[in-house]
Amino acid sequence: MAAVFEWPLRVYIEDTDAGGIVYYVNYLKFIERARTEYLRNLGFGKDFIFNNDLMFVVHSINCAYQKPARLDDQLLATASIVEMGKTFMLMEQKVYRPSGLSLDNELLFTAAVKVACVNRNTIKPQRIPQPLLLALQ
Amino acid sequence: MAAVFEWPLRVYIEDTDAGGIVYYVNYLKFIERARTEYLRNLGFGKDFIFNNDLMFVVHSINCAYQKPARLDDQLLATASIVEMGKTFMLMEQKVYRPSGLSLDNELLFTAAVKVACVNRNTIKPQRIPQPLLLALQ
Amino acid sequence: MAAVFEWPLRVYIEDTDAGGIVYYVNYLKFIERARTEYLRNLGFGKDFIFNNDLMFVVHSINCAYQKPARLDDQLLATASIVEMGKTFMLMEQKVYRPSGLSLDNELLFTAAVKVACVNRNTIKPQRIPQPLLLALQ
Amino acid sequence: MAAVFEWPLRVYIEDTDAGGIVYYVNYLKFIERARTEYLRNLGFGKDFIFNNDLMFVVHSINCAYQKPARLDDQLLATASIVEMGKTFMLMEQKVYRPSGLSLDNELLFTAAVKVACVNRNTIKPQRIPQPLLLALQ
Repeated sequence: MAAVFEWPLRVYIEDTDAGGIVYYVNYLKFIERARTEYLRNLGFGKDFIFNNDLMFVVHSINCAYQKPARLDDQLLATASIVEMGKTFMLMEQKVYRPSGLSLDNELLFTAAVKVACVNRNTIKPQRIPQPLLLALQ
Repeated sequence: MAAVFEWPLRVYIEDTDAGGIVYYVNYLKFIERARTEYLRNLGFGKDFIFNNDLMFVVHSINCAYQKPARLDDQLLATASIVEMGKTFMLMEQKVYRPSGLSLDNELLFTAAVKVACVNRNTIKPQRIPQPLLLALQ
Repeated sequence: MAAVFEWPLRVYIEDTDAGGIVYYVNYLKFIERARTEYLRNLGFGKDFIFNNDLMFVVHSINCAYQKPARLDDQLLATASIVEMGKTFMLMEQKVYRPSGLSLDNELLFTAAVKVACVNRNTIKPQRIPQPLLLALQ
Repeated sequence: MAAVFEWPLRVYIEDTDAGGIVYYVNYLKFIERARTEYLRNLGFGKDFIFNNDLMFVVHSINCAYQKPARLDDQLLATASIVEMGKTFMLMEQKVYRPSGLSLDNELLFTAAVKVACVNRNTIKPQRIPQPLLLALQ
């Protein structure tokens, strides 16, 4: 069973739009924060990534908006590995509004995100370094 | 054959990130501009939408990043209708870097976007008004 | 002596630009988060603001960029009241990169921000409610 | 008398916030577009800047918000040189909502922006190249 990493975040006025809800684009910022913190939490922060001359870029996304988030909401963004390739990882990510009872958590946004490991200079696919691969499996 | 609406845009520093390329999230801004201008071009601007108490919200997206855009690039974002439902429209959208020869156009980003028509207050599905439905078919 | 409220934040890729540093515009997001959390911390969150039909809007800013922030930096944004008027507050705000020794803190950004209290519907000046005025003085 | 460069822009949903108006931070994006297009218009685009290993960074801003802009507004952002130094330029910038009669133009935002010319790698002050200096004077 895959571990699910959770990252808390608050909705600020910067995240909203004139519809009075979180601007649809910004959910992608929220889930990227969760991906970044997930890797950092495993010990693979900016230094590791720069020292290996690599960069993680999003290859493709399949996402659905379930319910709107609103100003001041306290949310959780999640990240979990679904599949590891040699040069990519497939992640399942969610944004939800937690409730006292986890049964009552409200799911707002779900995404399947394929992230490719590329060379920082050439932007060509590059193998995910072994230590990171092991940590994520 | 479906009409393809094209909207030009320029990449500014605000659109880029520390990877030196357009931040992945911002392609969703680009294609929303194309959707908005497409509707405006057909005569359905903000007034029409407000007068009908409706709002268009993104229901789901399936998208792929092909090549990075860079600072100062002059790009085209497209929108075309793939399917019209009573309360939703499915659009195919692209972002590409045009070339003198259209054969040499570089495709950067593709997305299938399902947009739902909802009531502005309840955020429940609402029928797309008949004049707009006719214009889009 | 005025209290200084401090709010921690992390620099994500969403905050950076192709210059490899935090995009200059985003410091204004950082200091607004500090203002919002300052008021929330005093017990004046979104509910208080909505119930009083008011909105805080920025009237003017005088700001200077001292040093660039970079990806992954852990920063502190501050807010402190310099002057309270009947319908506005003048705040001093900073963003800095803390160090183990506070003497070595690096100041990145300073701003004097005048925030006006306005009616949510008319966007005309409105008196700051008494309880908030008292809490801020 | 200084020339005033004008750049048109449209307010999209991406520019707004839950207050129903343009998010205060985004006026800084609007005026940066005007600065960029002003330089490009004089023949000093990205290539010139990169070939000279320089970067323009904002040193300080003094700005005031006069009236809110709203979704779909067609605006003009301006840029004009107030003072040229060896390593900086001081610009006056405005955002306004044009009217049929220019007397009725609505001023929304004004800013005095000091832009410093720095070396791209060291981020230390660097002389503005002579051709650009001459073009701006």
